[in-house]
Formats: sequence, structure tokens, C-alpha cells
Amino acid sequence: MSGHGEFDLIARYFAPLATSPGAYGLKDDAALLAPLRGRSLVLTKDAIVEGVHYLLGDPPDQVARKLLRVNLSDLAAKGATPHGYLLACAFPKKVDARWIAAFARGLKHDQSHFALTLLGGDTVATPGPAVFSATMIGHVANRAIIRRAGARAGDLLCVTGTIGDGGFGLTELRTPQEGLAAAQRRFLIARYRLPQPRTRLGPLLAPIASAALDVSDGLVQDAEHLAAQSNLRLEIDTNRVPLSPAGQAIARRDPAAGMSALSAGDDYEILFTVPPRRLEALKRAALAAKTRVTVIGRATRGQGVDVLGEGGKLLALSVRGYDHFTR
Amino acid sequence: MSGHGEFDLIARYFAPLATSPGAYGLKDDAALLAPLRGRSLVLTKDAIVEGVHYLLGDPPDQVARKLLRVNLSDLAAKGATPHGYLLACAFPKKVDARWIAAFARGLKHDQSHFALTLLGGDTVATPGPAVFSATMIGHVANRAIIRRAGARAGDLLCVTGTIGDGGFGLTELRTPQEGLAAAQRRFLIARYRLPQPRTRLGPLLAPIASAALDVSDGLVQDAEHLAAQSNLRLEIDTNRVPLSPAGQAIARRDPAAGMSALSAGDDYEILFTVPPRRLEALKRAALAAKTRVTVIGRATRGQGVDVLGEGGKLLALSVRGYDHFTR
Repeated sequence: MSGHGEFDLIARYFAPLATSPGAYGLKDDAALLAPLRGRSLVLTKDAIVEGVHYLLGDPPDQVARKLLRVNLSDLAAKGATPHGYLLACAFPKKVDARWIAAFARGLKHDQSHFALTLLGGDTVATPGPAVFSATMIGHVANRAIIRRAGARAGDLLCVTGTIGDGGFGLTELRTPQEGLAAAQRRFLIARYRLPQPRTRLGPLLAPIASAALDVSDGLVQDAEHLAAQSNLRLEIDTNRVPLSPAGQAIARRDPAAGMSALSAGDDYEILFTVPPRRLEALKRAALAAKTRVTVIGRATRGQGVDVLGEGGKLLALSVRGYDHFTR
Repeated sequence: MSGHGEFDLIARYFAPLATSPGAYGLKDDAALLAPLRGRSLVLTKDAIVEGVHYLLGDPPDQVARKLLRVNLSDLAAKGATPHGYLLACAFPKKVDARWIAAFARGLKHDQSHFALTLLGGDTVATPGPAVFSATMIGHVANRAIIRRAGARAGDLLCVTGTIGDGGFGLTELRTPQEGLAAAQRRFLIARYRLPQPRTRLGPLLAPIASAALDVSDGLVQDAEHLAAQSNLRLEIDTNRVPLSPAGQAIARRDPAAGMSALSAGDDYEILFTVPPRRLEALKRAALAAKTRVTVIGRATRGQGVDVLGEGGKLLALSVRGYDHFTR
């Protein structure tokens, strides 16, 4: 950081990202956000740590984009349209200015892609690994947020995209598996490094889904959260859980590795429930958002999550998801 | 952290702080914030790092309260009334559950004191020192935020409270000075550990002050920010800069140490300008908020900050404030 003070850093790399008038070019203590007529704000905040949520060698622009995207995924799952974010960066004292420049380029890229603006934040130095957090602000029509609570017995359980790719990608980065085509390996790593938040579909789900959440800690564990908050039981039919072609290749070679897709985390897909009568509306929404949606099970009376295999046989899973503190 | 998973932590220590219905007891992906009629939101985000912004041995409840208060100080300087916050905690993996419990007690104490509510956040583990950030949300009457820009030549320059105590307190923690009474030493350390954000006066300044900012990086350096944003020159009369009795005792024994009050940082007071015709209104506001306000100089045409000593003589200061990256 030699030659770069805190204020230089902000002026050079972050102020150009503060495109809304209320951010005052990051030259004030706080940002102003005037009310959006008829809209309620939806707020979420996620943090990422070097060596924990991303790897030291990951490209800095992708670290920045992942930070935004894990937060955008939360907003999408709530049916919210993204608006802007505040950013806290704790950079290691010896960080290279080129690293920060590339990080800022990643922010800029995704701001443009998702129509976001930087509203404020803080830049500090840390003697430890880098820690970043973003507070993401979106909006929904008056109070029309999709909750985790709200699913009813008889609802269909659905998921966007494909499951397990992020986890497989992380495995490839740590201990590359033999027998996987190079293109598939690249695809999985890209899925780990760069989640695809379902920001187009999310707002369309608001009038359709009865409950939803972001799948980030593992499909089964996140389904358990939805089941608990909706006070019912969820059934997941493993044969219907959508895997990418790369994921299918892994599952064919090693069925146990394939099953890990259910608990691996880093999916950043939306898991949601819909009443069966809204299935046609869901198909139209998926088509409009160009987003794959798959029915993978259903909600019934009861509690917890049951994972069903071949012929509806109940499977026992030892690991159901990711916990930052116990693993 | 043995025996405490991420979700246990949140349920046990943080969910009880999420007192607004829109926070859903921290059991959802995001919080809902319905519009506040006729109010604009004011948003700020500050981060603190163990060993940088607070010391490892600092009481955890005071670390939590300092985190809230440095953010509340930004809101107060903008004339905003606090509403709630989002919190990101990166805890070292080996952190003691008692430390977290005490940290949460600190949050609870100040939530009650400042009428705040926890709206959401994230709890992650880090292999490095703890890093915390809070996004603080307040509100002002429609767009009536106090900017750093807006001061005019002829305005009086004012500051709340006393200056330098936080810096003197940090010095006492690092290398205790001889000859200071124990009570004064305790006072200074408390001022370092526990800023007193001027949340009562701040909203009353909105119709009175022409410009304002939070003094956190050193009086002179922060005055330079105000001068630059308002495009004028500020004069600070050192003889009028308010020191606490403990600060005065230090300045008497060691005038150079006394002068360091002007650049030490950690004041968390409001530096602001008022047109002379609003001086009576300012006195009434200060009285109503029970907050000391001192006129320490004035704004003139020109640029930069001039620090005047005995007889109006211009002083040269080598260190004007704190920069996290260059010092």
C-alpha cells in the first residue's frame, strides 16, 4: 500500500462506482436514499473472508463479483429488485494496488450487469487476511417480500438452475479429480467463483411463490430452514435434483460424490414452494427470465426434510450442509 | 467455538436483538424496511479491526458499543435520527463464547440507549483478527441531510464536546504518562473506548448548520475535508478548541502533547458551520440536547485550514490527522 493513503484509495478506485447523487461521490459521511414510492426496502448483508469463502489465488475481480452476487442471491430469493450497496473492505496492509484496482473493476462490471450503485462504505487496513462485507439494498412492491415462512402442505418444491456445481468446483480447485474433461472442470470452477444470482426470476416469483430462500449452505440444510420456518415437512426426490452435465459426469463415476451435491453449499440458487395451481404462472415466469426451474419435491404436513432415492426409498445423509464454525 | 455452530450463535446471541418485525428474528435471508412517511434514509458503514481500531484486551461489550457509536456519530453529523443497523462479524475461530456473549450484551445496551434495532447481518469465522462492520440506517425529514458542502464565508466554525480525549486515552493505554490523576486517566481511556455520539444534538442541527461532519480522523484533517467540500477556507483558533480538564492537565505539562489534540482522531464530535444569525437558535438547540458547543473559528473565502495560535499567529502542523494506510 506504499504511496496509497486511505483517501487516495477511495477517490481512485471506489468513488467512480458511487454513481447515484445521494452517494455524494463518497465525499461525505453518509449517503442519502430518498423513499421509492410504493416500495419497501429489502436489506441483506453477507461477509467473505480470504482463505475461507474464497481462495488466496482467486482473481480479485471475481472475489468482488462473488461478494456482490452472494448478496444479490439473497435479494433474488426474497423477490426483490436490487438497487445499491454499501461496502466494507479490510485490506491486508501489504495488499498490492493492482489487486485493489482489479477488485474495483470486478465491482464495476457487476454494477453495470445488475444495475447497481455503490452508496457508501469503509476501507480499513488489517494485519490479517482480507475481510469484505456488503450490505445490499433492494426493493419490493409494498411489503411483498417472499418469506421462508408461508409454504403450505401440497405445495410443490422447486429449485432454479443446477445444484452442486459450486461444491464440485471447490473440490476441483483443492484436489482435481481425474477423468473430468477440461471444459467441465472450468465450468465447475467458474460456478464456484462466480455465482449466478437469479435476479431476473426473483421479482417474478413474488406473486407466485409461497416461500423461498437462497441455497448457499447446502440444499438439504437450507430446505430444513424453509421447513422449520413454514412449519411443515419437505420431501426432496434426489432423482429430480437438477445436475449440470459436469455434475452428472461426476455422479456417474462416483455416486457418493454425486450425492454430495445435496449438501455442498455455494449453489446460490433459489429454493421455493408454489401452490400447484400456480405452476403455469411459474412456467411463464421461468421462460420470461430465461431461468431453468425444476420441481424436486413437495411439502406435506409434518416437519424436517426427507431425502428420497430410487423408488421413493428414504435416504440417510450424514452431512446436510455447511457450517462455518463447526467444520 | 467448540459446541457453537453458526446458527446457534445467531439464535442465541443475535436474534434477541432483532426486535423489529421486519427482521423476522434473523430467521430469513433479508429484512424488510417499509418506507417511513416523509423521511429519507441516511446510510453509513464503518468497519473496525482487532489490534487496529481497538485493542485485544478491550472489554468486548465496549468493542460492540464503539462499533455502533462510530456509526451513530456519522449519522448525528448528518442530522439524522438513528433507526437500526446490520452487523457483520468475522470472529476468530477460537473465540470464546463468553467473549461473544459480552459483545452481544454491549450491543443490547446501546440498542436500548439509542433506540436502535438489529435488522440483519452475517456471522463468519476468520483465521485472522476479528473484523466487524455495521451499516447504520437513520432518517431525516425529506432530503434534509447536512452535507460537508454548504458552508459559506462568514459562517462560524463550531465543535461539540471536547477534543483530543480519545487520542490521549489511546496514549494512556499504550504508554501511561506520569503525573496524571487516576480519575483523569480513567476518563480519557473511557473516552477512547466509548465515544459519545451526539445523537441528540444532530437532528436539531439539521435546520441550523450549513455544513457538518464527524470528527474521527483528527480535527484539522476533518476540517480540511469540510473546507474542500464547501470550497472555502477555515480558520481554527487553537485557544478556543475545547479541552476536557484531563486534556488541559496534559497540555499544561506538555504543550506539544496538548497540540496533538488537534490531529489525534477518535473524537467522534461534530464539526459544523453556522451562519452568525443562527447562533441563538444553536444555543437553544445545545441547551435542549444538553450538549456543549464551542465556536472555534470561522469560514472565509480561500481554501484549506489555517490553525492560529497566540495572538492569531499562524501555526505549522506536521501531522494533521490519521490515515489507516500510511501510518
